[in-house]
Amino acid sequence: VSELDEFKADAARAALEHVRSGTVVGLGSGSTAAFVITELGRRLRDGELRDVRGVPTSSGTERLAVAAGIPLVALPADGVDVAIDGMDEVDGALDAIKGLGGALTREKIVAAAARTFVLVADHTKRVRRLGERCPVPVEVLEFGLERTASRLAALGCRPVLRRRDDVVYRTDNAHVVLDCAVGEDFEPAVFAAAVERLPGVVGHGLFLGMASVAYLAGADGLSTLRSSRAERP
Amino acid sequence: VSELDEFKADAARAALEHVRSGTVVGLGSGSTAAFVITELGRRLRDGELRDVRGVPTSSGTERLAVAAGIPLVALPADGVDVAIDGMDEVDGALDAIKGLGGALTREKIVAAAARTFVLVADHTKRVRRLGERCPVPVEVLEFGLERTASRLAALGCRPVLRRRDDVVYRTDNAHVVLDCAVGEDFEPAVFAAAVERLPGVVGHGLFLGMASVAYLAGADGLSTLRSSRAERP
Repeated sequence: VSELDEFKADAARAALEHVRSGTVVGLGSGSTAAFVITELGRRLRDGELRDVRGVPTSSGTERLAVAAGIPLVALPADGVDVAIDGMDEVDGALDAIKGLGGALTREKIVAAAARTFVLVADHTKRVRRLGERCPVPVEVLEFGLERTASRLAALGCRPVLRRRDDVVYRTDNAHVVLDCAVGEDFEPAVFAAAVERLPGVVGHGLFLGMASVAYLAGADGLSTLRSSRAERP
Repeated sequence: VSELDEFKADAARAALEHVRSGTVVGLGSGSTAAFVITELGRRLRDGELRDVRGVPTSSGTERLAVAAGIPLVALPADGVDVAIDGMDEVDGALDAIKGLGGALTREKIVAAAARTFVLVADHTKRVRRLGERCPVPVEVLEFGLERTASRLAALGCRPVLRRRDDVVYRTDNAHVVLDCAVGEDFEPAVFAAAVERLPGVVGHGLFLGMASVAYLAGADGLSTLRSSRAERP
C-alpha cells in the first residue's frame, strides 16, 4: 500500500462521515471513489452503518459495489441524501471537471440529485484555474458530430474526438466524447451555459456550484475544502 | 388525392423555392415533409435543380429520400443552406413544438445548422399558444428517469413516459421520451432554458426563434407566416 493510497483511504473515511444509516448514497467512479465503496462495504458488514443503499454511476462502480456487498437501487425520484465522487480537476470554489473516465452524464445526474455532494481525490487534482491541465469532456450524439465540433470550437475551445486504442470511444449511453481543450481566458460558467444550449449535446464535464466539500489526500495528509454555499434543502 | 394533400403539395412547392442548385438541404420528417422529399426528387430528375444533397433527420426520411433519388450526406461542419421540416404546433411568432414523431433531437441539430429554416404543415397545426393541444416532448436518458421526471414536474408540467403498443418508446438515439403536458400559464422560453440545464436531458421539442417562414396548407389554400427576425448569416 503506497502512502498516497493511505491518504486516499483517509479521504474516503472523511467522506463517509456524511453518510447516515437508512439513506441512499450516490456512488461515484475513479480510484478514490473505489476506496469509498470498499470502506462503505466494510462499515455495512461491521454494523457501523445499516440499511444504506447505493446508486452506481457506471458499470465499473456497479461491479465494485456488488463485490463490496452494497445493495443497489435505481436513482429515486426524490434524489439521494449524499453523493460521493472523484474528479479530474477542482478549484478553490469547489468547481470541478469530471469525465475523463467517461461516466460524466450519469455522474452529473446523481450529483445534481444529492442534497450533499462530496468530492474525494488525491491532491494532484487541485488547480488554480479549471481547464489548466484537463480538457472539458462534452458527450455528444454521433449524428451531426462535425457540426457540433464546429459549434464547440466557435465557443473558443479545441475539441478532439476521444479514442481509445485508435477506436472511437463510446460512453455507457453509446455516445461519443469531444475533449475540449481550453485556454487561459476560459470562463467555465459562460462555456457551460452555451454548451447546454447546443442541440446534440448530451452532457458536459463541468460541475459548477454542486459540491459542498472536497477531501483531498496529499503527501502531507488530508486537506478539506468547504464551499461557502449552503447545502441544498 | 384529397384536397388537403393538394394543399400540402402547394406548401412543399413553396418551401422548395428556398432551395438553390449546388446546396445541401436538411430533410425533415412528417407527412408534409414527405411531399417536400418527393417534389425535390422530381425537380432533380427533371433538371429544375442540380447537385442538391440532403441530410435526413430520421431513418424514415432517409428511406423516402433514397427512394426519391436524392443524394444524401452527413451534416457538414459549416451547416446547411436550408432545412425544411414539419411541426406539431406553430404559433404566430413561428415558435413550434416538434417531436411527436420522435426524431426531435436530430431535427433540431439540423434546423439549428440551417441558414434558413422553413416550416411546412397543414393549417390544423396553427395554435394561439404553444402547448394548447400537444405536450412538449423531452428526450431523456433512461438512467435516472424517475428523478428527471420529478424535476420536469417541478417546472410545472405533467410528464408521461411515451409508450407505443404498451412498450416503452425509444428514439433513434435509443433514449426514452417524456411527453410533458403544460398548462395555460406555460412560458416556452423559460421552460426551454430550465430543461436544457437539467442533467439527463438529451433534447426537447421546443423550436424557439428558429424558423424564418412557415407554409401552412389549409382548406382555403396556402397561408404564409413570416418571422420578423432576420435570417441567420
